[in-house]
Amino acid sequence: MGKIYVGFMRIGIDLGGTKIIGGLVDEKGLVRVRKRIPTPREKGYEGITESIIHLIHGIIEDSAVDKGGIERIGIASAGQIDRYSHRIVFSPNLGFHDAPLRDDIERGTGIATFIENDVNAATYGEWRFGLKGVPQNVVGIFLGTGIGGGLIVDGKLYKGFSNVGGEIGHMTVNPDGYQCNCGNTGCFEAYCGGSYIVERVKRRLEEGYRGEIWSLIKGDIETLHAGHIENAYRMGDDFCGRIWREVIEYLGAALASIVNLLNPEMIILGGGVIYGTKYLIDDARDVMKRRAMKASLEGLRIEKAMLGEDAAILGAAYAGSAP
Amino acid sequence: MGKIYVGFMRIGIDLGGTKIIGGLVDEKGLVRVRKRIPTPREKGYEGITESIIHLIHGIIEDSAVDKGGIERIGIASAGQIDRYSHRIVFSPNLGFHDAPLRDDIERGTGIATFIENDVNAATYGEWRFGLKGVPQNVVGIFLGTGIGGGLIVDGKLYKGFSNVGGEIGHMTVNPDGYQCNCGNTGCFEAYCGGSYIVERVKRRLEEGYRGEIWSLIKGDIETLHAGHIENAYRMGDDFCGRIWREVIEYLGAALASIVNLLNPEMIILGGGVIYGTKYLIDDARDVMKRRAMKASLEGLRIEKAMLGEDAAILGAAYAGSAP
Repeated sequence: MGKIYVGFMRIGIDLGGTKIIGGLVDEKGLVRVRKRIPTPREKGYEGITESIIHLIHGIIEDSAVDKGGIERIGIASAGQIDRYSHRIVFSPNLGFHDAPLRDDIERGTGIATFIENDVNAATYGEWRFGLKGVPQNVVGIFLGTGIGGGLIVDGKLYKGFSNVGGEIGHMTVNPDGYQCNCGNTGCFEAYCGGSYIVERVKRRLEEGYRGEIWSLIKGDIETLHAGHIENAYRMGDDFCGRIWREVIEYLGAALASIVNLLNPEMIILGGGVIYGTKYLIDDARDVMKRRAMKASLEGLRIEKAMLGEDAAILGAAYAGSAP
Repeated sequence: MGKIYVGFMRIGIDLGGTKIIGGLVDEKGLVRVRKRIPTPREKGYEGITESIIHLIHGIIEDSAVDKGGIERIGIASAGQIDRYSHRIVFSPNLGFHDAPLRDDIERGTGIATFIENDVNAATYGEWRFGLKGVPQNVVGIFLGTGIGGGLIVDGKLYKGFSNVGGEIGHMTVNPDGYQCNCGNTGCFEAYCGGSYIVERVKRRLEEGYRGEIWSLIKGDIETLHAGHIENAYRMGDDFCGRIWREVIEYLGAALASIVNLLNPEMIILGGGVIYGTKYLIDDARDVMKRRAMKASLEGLRIEKAMLGEDAAILGAAYAGSAP
């Protein structure tokens, strides 16, 4: 059976700060074998690299394909990827500095390996397999703990001059605004990134605040996530209302900026903050419509990402190759 | 002599709210014959169209080329251009609504005619003839009375889905900020557009304010322009300092947003506010460097536009054709 797929199967790896997910994928976007392990951060770069190689061998063993039938490996990694050396320049989540992961995986597996930024990979995966590559200008915005973005321009993943384009989370939405982890103030991420929002409410709860939010989380601050805050806002919680209205307004304003600047055909919204809330996309869309120029809104669609964790795996496996 | 250029000469028209400039141009970016007339706004669309046709015939008469030697006419017009009908959807500066200017000029001259948004045309002209088409990812930002922008992506003028991409002036830089003419609040244009800045200081002067600015303009409020305000700021004028620091900060923040999002190789700054001031580019660059991500700044160049009024004429004549 293996031979059937020779030359058409790839392996995609999503390397995150807490887990590594790997999948054997085909050119139709099906994930045929999937494996996941926790990221052994305590073992550092060498240990993580070994674990990935081990994971890849495990995937090949579990599949009907022999090693020669794997056309290539794609890795989606947090952090900036140097366009010439393909090294991971810097990834705070993984603790990597100037890491030659691509070369080491290629050496360790004997299979041609490519590396891509994780949000670029997820955007590409959603575009190519979720949307079947139809819309030609797409913006992917992923609101997780932080905010990442990817751009599809004229049917291709946009990289920028030094390979770090798409940092939507670090557009300034208010120069005097909240402090962002990037060092700047007033970034979109500092307003709408999951960890920033949750942290704001957590701190207030630790100071003794007891609004509707308190009963929603049953007094367990550690369980708090964006969905609770949206619910509390809708129930009339005073502090959560203040925080969540800000999230809606700034997400809407950021969408309007993107729409005015790039006039995309589609915006895909994904990430934990989107998946964990019910009304945020609609609420932010209303703000966007009020703020954006009419001509730029014409024909625009805003959709929730549909592939979940498969997006980065598929995107990593296929980004950089012709559709 | 005319025959030498057959097939290689074009006419570019820059249609503005106050003047129309036309030029006979060649593929090297030389403007060989140039003519200008005031825009007869009082005569409405028909009158303006007639004037353009008359201007084109005048250019042809003054040149050594006969009409058959003009390969095409390009028009750079303020306003949004519909990508299918090529009509000017709306241009407040010209008073046009759904204007079939391209078709009417083509009919009136018998020469194939193209139309492009004026800022897109200027960006394309600067890129192709000023920069010789070398950098592949360029952002043009023109700070005139308002703010317009154009994007060159992978060596092509970026249009967006409905042909209105590049509206950099209407990125939200502060959701609760100044009112913008587009109806939104806190647009980049409302902070850094020439007419907005000048209006702010004018109003204060009319209220009786008399800082250093008053002696700079010799008491003649009507002569006030951005250069005066920058000078007054540097001389310690209190109110102008407040306004100009805001211009520097918001221009810097907008540049940082663009850089983080698009990671361009080059940003070209043009328009009256840029040409009329001495230190603005350097001051804003400092803010940008403080705000943008390090990796996105790598190799980035920021340059003053170099072609002046020729940029839109040349860009109109050549945008849309292969380099």
